[in-house]
Amino acid sequence: DFLYALENDIKPAFGASEEALTTYMARGIIAWGDPVHHLLEDGNLLIQQAKSPESSGLVSVLLEGPPNSGKTALAAFLAKNSGFPFVKVCTPEDMIGFTESAKCLTIRKTFDDAYKSTMSCIVVDNLERLIDYGPVGPRYSNLTLQALLVLLKKQPPRGRQLLVICTSSRRQVLEDLELIFTFTAVLHVPCLSKSEHLLRVLEETDVFSKRELLNISNKTKDRRVFIGIRKLLAMVDMARQTEEQFRTLKFLSRLEEEGSLEMVA
Amino acid sequence: DFLYALENDIKPAFGASEEALTTYMARGIIAWGDPVHHLLEDGNLLIQQAKSPESSGLVSVLLEGPPNSGKTALAAFLAKNSGFPFVKVCTPEDMIGFTESAKCLTIRKTFDDAYKSTMSCIVVDNLERLIDYGPVGPRYSNLTLQALLVLLKKQPPRGRQLLVICTSSRRQVLEDLELIFTFTAVLHVPCLSKSEHLLRVLEETDVFSKRELLNISNKTKDRRVFIGIRKLLAMVDMARQTEEQFRTLKFLSRLEEEGSLEMVA
Amino acid sequence: DFLYALENDIKPAFGASEEALTTYMARGIIAWGDPVHHLLEDGNLLIQQAKSPESSGLVSVLLEGPPNSGKTALAAFLAKNSGFPFVKVCTPEDMIGFTESAKCLTIRKTFDDAYKSTMSCIVVDNLERLIDYGPVGPRYSNLTLQALLVLLKKQPPRGRQLLVICTSSRRQVLEDLELIFTFTAVLHVPCLSKSEHLLRVLEETDVFSKRELLNISNKTKDRRVFIGIRKLLAMVDMARQTEEQFRTLKFLSRLEEEGSLEMVA
Amino acid sequence: DFLYALENDIKPAFGASEEALTTYMARGIIAWGDPVHHLLEDGNLLIQQAKSPESSGLVSVLLEGPPNSGKTALAAFLAKNSGFPFVKVCTPEDMIGFTESAKCLTIRKTFDDAYKSTMSCIVVDNLERLIDYGPVGPRYSNLTLQALLVLLKKQPPRGRQLLVICTSSRRQVLEDLELIFTFTAVLHVPCLSKSEHLLRVLEETDVFSKRELLNISNKTKDRRVFIGIRKLLAMVDMARQTEEQFRTLKFLSRLEEEGSLEMVA
Amino acid sequence: DFLYALENDIKPAFGASEEALTTYMARGIIAWGDPVHHLLEDGNLLIQQAKSPESSGLVSVLLEGPPNSGKTALAAFLAKNSGFPFVKVCTPEDMIGFTESAKCLTIRKTFDDAYKSTMSCIVVDNLERLIDYGPVGPRYSNLTLQALLVLLKKQPPRGRQLLVICTSSRRQVLEDLELIFTFTAVLHVPCLSKSEHLLRVLEETDVFSKRELLNISNKTKDRRVFIGIRKLLAMVDMARQTEEQFRTLKFLSRLEEEGSLEMVA
Amino acid sequence: DFLYALENDIKPAFGASEEALTTYMARGIIAWGDPVHHLLEDGNLLIQQAKSPESSGLVSVLLEGPPNSGKTALAAFLAKNSGFPFVKVCTPEDMIGFTESAKCLTIRKTFDDAYKSTMSCIVVDNLERLIDYGPVGPRYSNLTLQALLVLLKKQPPRGRQLLVICTSSRRQVLEDLELIFTFTAVLHVPCLSKSEHLLRVLEETDVFSKRELLNISNKTKDRRVFIGIRKLLAMVDMARQTEEQFRTLKFLSRLEEEGSLEMVA
Ligand SMILES: Nc1ncnc2c1ncn2[C@@H]1O[C@H](COP(=O)(O)OP(=O)(O)OP(=O)(O)O)[C@@H](O)[C@H]1O
Ligand SMILES: Nc1ncnc2c1ncn2[C@@H]1O[C@H](COP(=O)(O)OP(=O)(O)OP(=O)(O)O)[C@@H](O)[C@H]1O
Ligand SMILES: Nc1ncnc2c1ncn2[C@@H]1O[C@H](COP(=O)(O)OP(=O)(O)OP(=O)(O)O)[C@@H](O)[C@H]1O
Ligand SMILES: Nc1ncnc2c1ncn2[C@@H]1O[C@H](COP(=O)(O)OP(=O)(O)OP(=O)(O)O)[C@@H](O)[C@H]1O
Ligand SMILES: Nc1ncnc2c1ncn2[C@@H]1O[C@H](COP(=O)(O)OP(=O)(O)OP(=O)(O)O)[C@@H](O)[C@H]1O
Ligand SMILES: Nc1ncnc2c1ncn2[C@@H]1O[C@H](COP(=O)(O)OP(=O)(O)OP(=O)(O)O)[C@@H](O)[C@H]1O
Ligand SMILES: [Mg+2]
Ligand SMILES: [Mg+2]
Ligand SMILES: [Mg+2]
Ligand SMILES: [Mg+2]
Ligand SMILES: [Mg+2]
Ligand SMILES: [Mg+2]
Repeated sequence: DFLYALENDIKPAFGASEEALTTYMARGIIAWGDPVHHLLEDGNLLIQQAKSPESSGLVSVLLEGPPNSGKTALAAFLAKNSGFPFVKVCTPEDMIGFTESAKCLTIRKTFDDAYKSTMSCIVVDNLERLIDYGPVGPRYSNLTLQALLVLLKKQPPRGRQLLVICTSSRRQVLEDLELIFTFTAVLHVPCLSKSEHLLRVLEETDVFSKRELLNISNKTKDRRVFIGIRKLLAMVDMARQTEEQFRTLKFLSRLEEEGSLEMVA
Repeated sequence: DFLYALENDIKPAFGASEEALTTYMARGIIAWGDPVHHLLEDGNLLIQQAKSPESSGLVSVLLEGPPNSGKTALAAFLAKNSGFPFVKVCTPEDMIGFTESAKCLTIRKTFDDAYKSTMSCIVVDNLERLIDYGPVGPRYSNLTLQALLVLLKKQPPRGRQLLVICTSSRRQVLEDLELIFTFTAVLHVPCLSKSEHLLRVLEETDVFSKRELLNISNKTKDRRVFIGIRKLLAMVDMARQTEEQFRTLKFLSRLEEEGSLEMVA
Repeated sequence: DFLYALENDIKPAFGASEEALTTYMARGIIAWGDPVHHLLEDGNLLIQQAKSPESSGLVSVLLEGPPNSGKTALAAFLAKNSGFPFVKVCTPEDMIGFTESAKCLTIRKTFDDAYKSTMSCIVVDNLERLIDYGPVGPRYSNLTLQALLVLLKKQPPRGRQLLVICTSSRRQVLEDLELIFTFTAVLHVPCLSKSEHLLRVLEETDVFSKRELLNISNKTKDRRVFIGIRKLLAMVDMARQTEEQFRTLKFLSRLEEEGSLEMVA
Repeated sequence: DFLYALENDIKPAFGASEEALTTYMARGIIAWGDPVHHLLEDGNLLIQQAKSPESSGLVSVLLEGPPNSGKTALAAFLAKNSGFPFVKVCTPEDMIGFTESAKCLTIRKTFDDAYKSTMSCIVVDNLERLIDYGPVGPRYSNLTLQALLVLLKKQPPRGRQLLVICTSSRRQVLEDLELIFTFTAVLHVPCLSKSEHLLRVLEETDVFSKRELLNISNKTKDRRVFIGIRKLLAMVDMARQTEEQFRTLKFLSRLEEEGSLEMVA
Repeated sequence: DFLYALENDIKPAFGASEEALTTYMARGIIAWGDPVHHLLEDGNLLIQQAKSPESSGLVSVLLEGPPNSGKTALAAFLAKNSGFPFVKVCTPEDMIGFTESAKCLTIRKTFDDAYKSTMSCIVVDNLERLIDYGPVGPRYSNLTLQALLVLLKKQPPRGRQLLVICTSSRRQVLEDLELIFTFTAVLHVPCLSKSEHLLRVLEETDVFSKRELLNISNKTKDRRVFIGIRKLLAMVDMARQTEEQFRTLKFLSRLEEEGSLEMVA
Repeated sequence: DFLYALENDIKPAFGASEEALTTYMARGIIAWGDPVHHLLEDGNLLIQQAKSPESSGLVSVLLEGPPNSGKTALAAFLAKNSGFPFVKVCTPEDMIGFTESAKCLTIRKTFDDAYKSTMSCIVVDNLERLIDYGPVGPRYSNLTLQALLVLLKKQPPRGRQLLVICTSSRRQVLEDLELIFTFTAVLHVPCLSKSEHLLRVLEETDVFSKRELLNISNKTKDRRVFIGIRKLLAMVDMARQTEEQFRTLKFLSRLEEEGSLEMVA
């Protein structure tokens, strides 16, 4: 019957999302520095607010930061550990080649499903892709934008609590489109910016030896670093393929070439 | 038969709208200051005019003000207390992902239904969303705009009285689109602007103790305040999650960060 | 059979139009001053020309003037009193949400029907709405514009007389779109511009007492007035709701606020 | 059978066109001056060239001139007196509300039909309307433009002679769209420009008496005149409705108001 | 069976094209001067390269020059005399009113058919029309452009030789659209530029007598000439209609009026 | 059954791609200089990274360089020699005239198929054509761009390794569209730039004799060269058709005309 179907619909949805959530943090969450801690704290406070029955039924958070800074992984982490029984992911990866209206329907369905649960959490990944933002023109799907503008402010039905976690690497675009003003809170996800951050990540991966790490530490100390966690992990992958004798050198020179490590004056 | 179906059509419509109206003022209407009183008075006068059989059959009002200032709640309040037997809500929340022409049909149907009643009231929420206004471009649905331009001036059939209450946070856009000139009256819904306004709201909510309120009053007195009622209620929710010892301090510093409270010189 | 159906098609069409014509001048035509007389005279001359079998078979008139100046009512008045047996109204109110091509078909059908009668009159109301003119962009329906550009110059079949009366409050737009050059004659419908015009209208309505009228006359004499008849009638409606003691004062101050009455130096 | 159907298709087509041709010169061709003679001569020469089997199979002529100058009537006159057995008219009046591709199909069909005859003539009226030229934007139907660009240069099959006569009041537009360069010859249709031209027309119509004509002649002699024959005939219609005593005066002052007659210094 | 059908498909295709090729040079190729010889030589070399099994399988040539310079006729001439067994013509004349995608399909089919033959030649006439280039905007069919950009560089299957001959009178447009860079070679088709060129053409046609030719030669010697062969032939047609006594004079003055013959100082 | 069908689907896909890969390097890979070696080395390192199970599952490489520089051939070479069992090609040549959404579906299908294999490699040729980039406007298919932006960053399912090799001759366009930032690595494919490079290619082809080569070497030594390998091979083809005595001379002067060889001062 209908109720049974409904439950069925929700369960696999949740299951699928759980798997997706795990994929998004395939390489775990490395606590590479204070910014990570602060962000998780702030995230936690908003989760508590979203859970409180005394609050308004809707809390919406935007995680924004440069490409590769780890936004999607952090959104997945927060959602998974929020304690919300219903978690759903809304990602452009599932809507490739969709028409505007198919996209809107999919997004809307996610929210409508969420409204059926007492407590639910929706991760909306990569807002700029979801609205088909093309920088030349610029172009964007106004239909999808309008849907998000409405859904991110729409009060869930009486007695329902909804937490929405969005990610984006185009803060300015969201401001221009006035989408940013719909959020309860906007949290910034930064890149690694210090030698210590870098070292913390390299320690967690098993590519460099103790001595190599010391060497890297000496060579990068007091130099400005600017690299997203995702990019850094890819460069560590590359270092893994490099012959041991050139590894440290090549790794550092690649960081410099990409502009991720301040040149020595 | 047809007449029976027609009545059926109208009744649940009204029922649904009644529920919607209540949702829109989930947190009630707090009389936080004079502007609220004036607005309700002006609203009342227009309701009387709309009801008078000697007047032209159409009165249309626009409630315009900054985001979060409480426009939708006030429109719902006026409509609910207008004494009009038929009240219908026309909101973008019900038309997510609709094509332009589906939107127009829905709006048109609402008005056509209203024309069937001797006295009816329509709340048209969030005009800028209804016309799919996208600030980059800019873009908007011309079809929907044209429909509104015509409907907001169209005389109901002889002997019918119609009150239309619209809301919008984009006054300038409505002026550019020449939609604003179709209204019988335009009422401004302001933000809270004084310490006293703030205190009135905090008193109504049960988060801060008497002493805390006194403290807040001392600290904000004579400082400019600029915050919408909806945003303020969300910040009160946040304060509720904060540990008691930091609550007042954090609440005030958050107001300052968001630009809602004048910094101390 | 076909002929019978045809007649049937024409008759209700006319009937419906007759009703529409009446609705458009729900509050009658008040002769508030010379401009009204001149306009009716000029209109009459053109009607005579349209009727004359010696003339070319087509006369097209544009009534243009500011919003609320009474264009639609005057067009209806002229059409109703033209003595033409077939009168049809073409108004955007009947085409809300229509696609461009549905609009064109409707307009075309109206003209095709008219060509079947020996003498017919078509009122085309609100040209800027009919072509979906949106000032931001600007946008307009080129398909509809092209249809009008052709139809307003198309000679009816031999032996048929056609009078077309159009209205518009966007003279400049019609010039830019080169629609204005298709008319046989363009008549300007002005706003009320003198105290005497105002008084003439107030006398016709039963809201103000003799003394109040005298008072208003004294207070407005020699001050510039600029208000459309439709707007003025709405303000009279508002005055009707106002308590007697404040009525005159409030009425005049509202006129000033709206910029309809010159401030006293 | 097919051949029979083909002939049937051609015959009524021709019949209909013949009627259309007559309608386009409902008021005849008044020889108001030298420009009319020159134009008819030039037209005749091109007709001879089109008929000559030694020439290339295609001659295309553009009649261009200000609105109301009599282009359509002259095109119809030339076509009717060309001696071509197959004459077809292609006019926007028959394609109101057509989609771009329906328009193209109609135009193409006209040419395809013509290719079937040994000698044929096509009148393509009002090119700017046919391509849906809207001056704001500007906009135009590129599909239709492309069809015309190709068809106006396409050689008919071996042994077929085709004469195409087009009209347009937007020479500059045709230049911008590079349509004008496709024609074998471009002939200018001017407005009336002298008092004598005016008098010749008034003599042909029976509205003014001998004395009135003399009066008009005296009053307009040596003043610049600028009016299209179509507009002039409409003003004569208006004069017919005017009371005799004011007729001459009003007629001349109307000409001045419209800018058709140079003001007296 | 399939193979039989295939051959059938190819044969009539070739047949039809052969006829088309002939139509395109209805008036033959007059060797009016050196530029004609050079162009045919260069064309021949490219044909040899296209035929050589040692070369890459694709040679693409663009014939570009002013309108009426004879591009289409020369392309047809080269194709017909190339000795390629399979010749197909791709011309906008066969695609009037086609949608973008119908156009693409037709073009693609032509190439796909060609790939089936060991040696084939495709004439693609009038590239700017094929891509629906409209100079106001400007507009063009991006879908068709993309198809051409790909097809003009696509290597035929192993063992197939393909020669593509395109024409265009809009070199700058092809450069802007980057279509020009896809060609193996670009050959310029010039207008006639000297008195001798003119005389060579007039001698070939039988309109002017020996004495008239001498007269023309004297009058044009040392004056700059600029006229396309196609336009010149049309003017000769016109001269044929002119009475003998005015012929030479009128012919030369028409050339001057059109800017095809330098005025005498 | 399904599994069987799946394998079937993959096998011919691979087969077809293998053939395509071969076609793309029809003339082999000539090691004309250091840049070729470096590029192949870098390519190899990235292949190793893509194969390593310790790395993230996705490596994406862009080969970018001027038109005709050999990008497609090199991409095919790398893919063929990568040792990946599943190789698929995604090329605009297979999608001529496809709608945007058909294109997206095709691209998406290629990636979805790849995700089913443990290790796969996708060659995406000519990105600017795939997104229908038209330089006038400019125009591009936003739908396809969005699909690529997502797919080039999308992590394959857990345990799958994917290598994507893309080519483009419009680096700036990819930067403007922000597509370039999605790649793990960007490798530049240069043109030949020295006399030695030129000689290396000419030696590999059998057109010029030893003495001719010496001659060319002497004449080009120390002059700047700038030509893509593909263009050079086409000019060698042309030289093959030239008579022996003019061959060297004509070859060099053609290089100079095309700007591929620095003029002698
Ligand atoms: N502290 C951390 N924060 C975020 N991600 C981390 C952290 N430590 C490790 N990671 C890993 O780094 C990767 C971050 O990639 P992710 O896709 O989240 O970045 P992103 O900012 O969303 O990138 P994009 O801008 O492309 O959307 C993930 O694989 C994640 O497991
Ligand atoms: N005096 C008041 N006026 C309006 N709303 C009030 C008032 N007092 C309390 N509220 C509550 O504040 C909230 C106002 O939110 P509302 O959605 O009406 O704001 P809005 O201006 O429509 O926002 P938006 O700009 O997003 O449309 C409602 O929950 C309402 O119950
Ligand atoms: N002299 C008058 N001329 C026109 N209308 C009059 C006059 N006197 C009274 N009226 C009344 O005034 C109203 C005029 O409204 P109407 O809709 O015709 O104005 P409009 O200029 O068409 O407005 P809009 O610009 O919105 O189209 C009608 O109700 C009409 O009955
Ligand atoms: N010498 C003349 N030349 C042209 N038309 C004439 C002449 N004398 C009288 N007429 C009449 O004048 C009218 C000319 O109108 P016509 O529609 O041809 O003008 P037009 O230039 O095509 O107008 P538009 O610019 O609107 O297309 C016709 O009714 C025709 O019978
Ligand atoms: N030497 C010549 N070169 C080309 N055409 C010639 C030559 N001599 C005579 N002709 C004739 O001149 C005409 C050339 O017309 P063609 O249509 O080829 O010109 P075009 O440049 O393609 O024109 P368009 O710019 O309109 O495409 C043909 O009828 C052809 O038979
Ligand atoms: N070292 C080389 N690198 C690349 N291609 C080579 C090399 N040596 C010979 N070739 C041959 O040169 C041709 C290169 O053409 P290819 O289509 O790859 O160029 P491209 O840069 O992709 O051109 P386009 O810019 O048009 O896409 C191929 O036929 C290939 O076999
Ligand atoms: Mg992300
Ligand atoms: Mg609201
Ligand atoms: Mg009106
Ligand atoms: Mg005309
Ligand atoms: Mg040509
Ligand atoms: Mg390539």
